[in-house]
Amino acid sequence: MDHESRQTRWEQRTEVPLGIASLIFLGAYALHVLVPGMPAVWHDVCLTLTVATWGLFLLDYAVRWRLSGRRLGFVHTHWLDTLVVVLPLLRPLRIVRLYEVVQRRHGEPRLSLHARVITYAGVSTVLLGFAGSLAVYQHERGAPGATIRTFGDSVWWACSTLATVGYGDVTPVTPVGRLIAVGLMACGLALLGAVTGSFSSWLIQVFSREEDERPPGR
Amino acid sequence: MDHESRQTRWEQRTEVPLGIASLIFLGAYALHVLVPGMPAVWHDVCLTLTVATWGLFLLDYAVRWRLSGRRLGFVHTHWLDTLVVVLPLLRPLRIVRLYEVVQRRHGEPRLSLHARVITYAGVSTVLLGFAGSLAVYQHERGAPGATIRTFGDSVWWACSTLATVGYGDVTPVTPVGRLIAVGLMACGLALLGAVTGSFSSWLIQVFSREEDERPPGR
Amino acid sequence: MDHESRQTRWEQRTEVPLGIASLIFLGAYALHVLVPGMPAVWHDVCLTLTVATWGLFLLDYAVRWRLSGRRLGFVHTHWLDTLVVVLPLLRPLRIVRLYEVVQRRHGEPRLSLHARVITYAGVSTVLLGFAGSLAVYQHERGAPGATIRTFGDSVWWACSTLATVGYGDVTPVTPVGRLIAVGLMACGLALLGAVTGSFSSWLIQVFSREEDERPPGR
Amino acid sequence: MDHESRQTRWEQRTEVPLGIASLIFLGAYALHVLVPGMPAVWHDVCLTLTVATWGLFLLDYAVRWRLSGRRLGFVHTHWLDTLVVVLPLLRPLRIVRLYEVVQRRHGEPRLSLHARVITYAGVSTVLLGFAGSLAVYQHERGAPGATIRTFGDSVWWACSTLATVGYGDVTPVTPVGRLIAVGLMACGLALLGAVTGSFSSWLIQVFSREEDERPPGR
Repeated sequence: MDHESRQTRWEQRTEVPLGIASLIFLGAYALHVLVPGMPAVWHDVCLTLTVATWGLFLLDYAVRWRLSGRRLGFVHTHWLDTLVVVLPLLRPLRIVRLYEVVQRRHGEPRLSLHARVITYAGVSTVLLGFAGSLAVYQHERGAPGATIRTFGDSVWWACSTLATVGYGDVTPVTPVGRLIAVGLMACGLALLGAVTGSFSSWLIQVFSREEDERPPGR
Repeated sequence: MDHESRQTRWEQRTEVPLGIASLIFLGAYALHVLVPGMPAVWHDVCLTLTVATWGLFLLDYAVRWRLSGRRLGFVHTHWLDTLVVVLPLLRPLRIVRLYEVVQRRHGEPRLSLHARVITYAGVSTVLLGFAGSLAVYQHERGAPGATIRTFGDSVWWACSTLATVGYGDVTPVTPVGRLIAVGLMACGLALLGAVTGSFSSWLIQVFSREEDERPPGR
Repeated sequence: MDHESRQTRWEQRTEVPLGIASLIFLGAYALHVLVPGMPAVWHDVCLTLTVATWGLFLLDYAVRWRLSGRRLGFVHTHWLDTLVVVLPLLRPLRIVRLYEVVQRRHGEPRLSLHARVITYAGVSTVLLGFAGSLAVYQHERGAPGATIRTFGDSVWWACSTLATVGYGDVTPVTPVGRLIAVGLMACGLALLGAVTGSFSSWLIQVFSREEDERPPGR
Repeated sequence: MDHESRQTRWEQRTEVPLGIASLIFLGAYALHVLVPGMPAVWHDVCLTLTVATWGLFLLDYAVRWRLSGRRLGFVHTHWLDTLVVVLPLLRPLRIVRLYEVVQRRHGEPRLSLHARVITYAGVSTVLLGFAGSLAVYQHERGAPGATIRTFGDSVWWACSTLATVGYGDVTPVTPVGRLIAVGLMACGLALLGAVTGSFSSWLIQVFSREEDERPPGR
């Protein structure tokens, strides 16, 4: 069996477990941040789950690297997976893949290209926005002079950032918070590109169909 | 007579009444919010009209569901109608359809695709911006620490949000106001996508025509 | 001689005088706003020039309406000219046309479609941004609680608005100033659409050329 | 040997030295701005390097003008090079070309059009954002009433500007700082256009491929 097929089999088998691990990661992290009054033991459980899911992703990454039979070229071609392993906040993106698997199993027909782009952009934005709000809230709530004081403020700030509106009534003031903010801005730009690009290509498609339907002599 | 044709006939007949109902809904809601000094009886009339038009939309939705002869699939394929029934602020979008009917009756030729997209995007933006300003103003005017104090402030805020400019000199502070704001931001993104997409596809179309008009040998 | 050719002759003859009238309009308005310490007689001269150029535009509009031999249909098809007559701030847009005439007389070759779109969008943005800054400055400088106090502030605000950045450190507070601001926001959206659309269609064009240059068998 | 080939040879030979000169320019400028506590002699070294690299660019520009055998037409067709000579902040853009040369020498295959556009837009944005942050920080740190007080503030402001988010919690207040800011806004618009345009043309390309793969009879 060659490298290609082994890798494909591994990816098919780990798709669902890793998606569920992402959900657990996001849930444990959310509990840890949003319910500070929990007994200490629960905080420890959350922390353990967070670290454990990270270990799973690391393991999956290592196995796939091994199976690929390549060296540094693997890091280059799988840069998204590398990022997901290094940056925990991007881990929820795995849920998008889980969502696709579940939909496929339900036997629903594959959506059109535009619907898929919009759906993936939407789900990714919601997940990254939620994870970003959690992380910014965690780093900002204790900072002196912070304007983001409640989780509601953090979500409101994340929404205005992702839409590239940027009111500026609440903004992160800590270096870590601002670093996460820059990541969210990049997501906002990508979201804008996805929305605009889909719309534009949809219009062009509709238009070229109308052209085709006209009689050839015009 | 099959499901399809019955449904089409129903939709053709209810198009104008429902459009007028949307106008009445928007008018009654605007009166209720903008003229707080009206006698109490007028406020009751406005409230009654608001609820009555909502009843009409609910009825129309129920009849069409029935006529379709389907179950949950109807909710899936008519998600825009479902949203309009659930979220009253989206109801004015029906007026866009009324506008189209009126134009068709006047015998005016159908606009080109780009003109139609720009027109619909423009009319929808104005209607949603107006409805959003009303709703945000209603929820913010009494809030402690609110920066949106007059309806003018609310309209100004809605404009800067829809253009994704977002000055942040006046911003909603209540949870409900911020929820409506997030909806308006999504509209702003869609508007941007419509403007950019139309422009882009128009340019491509003009360009491909110029290509066609050149002599084949270049 | 039919309506069509008479109208074309009129437009060719009035192109340069009306463009120069726009320049005079913008110059007189700028002097009036930016040099408040001028002797009163100079202010009167500026005002007279402003009104006189408006009269010229009105006259041109009336003559063209007459020549077209149509009634209300003229207003509909020449909505941009109608807007320019009604809204003085849009008058500098005429200078764009003058720019085109001058370039043509110099015998320079016609630019490519993308270069033309970018050039026109750029020149229009600079002209409207300048006119908008002037108008906002005129209405804001005396207002109580205004943050736009110098012409520099006004230009800075106009730039951040046209790029849809919208810092909000200085913002108009008077109703007229905000009305002009909404107009500038719309220009900003259009500018964004022009930049994005040109870029997108340029990429598509380059790409389809690369496709053509490949050997047919791939 | 005609003008064309001489010019090409000159450009190939100076590509790497000028790229390195840009790196030295950016490094010396960054040291000068970010380490104010350096001994005076080091500041002098930085200043000398900054001026020397500018001299190199000027020399390269002059030689190429000479080699082209043209007069003012050269300024017109090489407007980007002219801008780079006049505006020192645009000089780091040369590093983008260096990056391309290095990649070519490593024998890596040429990227696809979309990957190249995204890569160049990304690298240019990072370089211009860094140079812009440095320049704004240099002009703002001593200004009375400035909100940009640390280099971190300046980078944070540059990021929010390039993403067209524009919070406005920290903004330049000096005329020079605002002038640089307007330049960064223009870069932000161009970045947005590049992201959106690439996405849109990529979607259109994927879509037309799917169309081609369908059986002709549909």
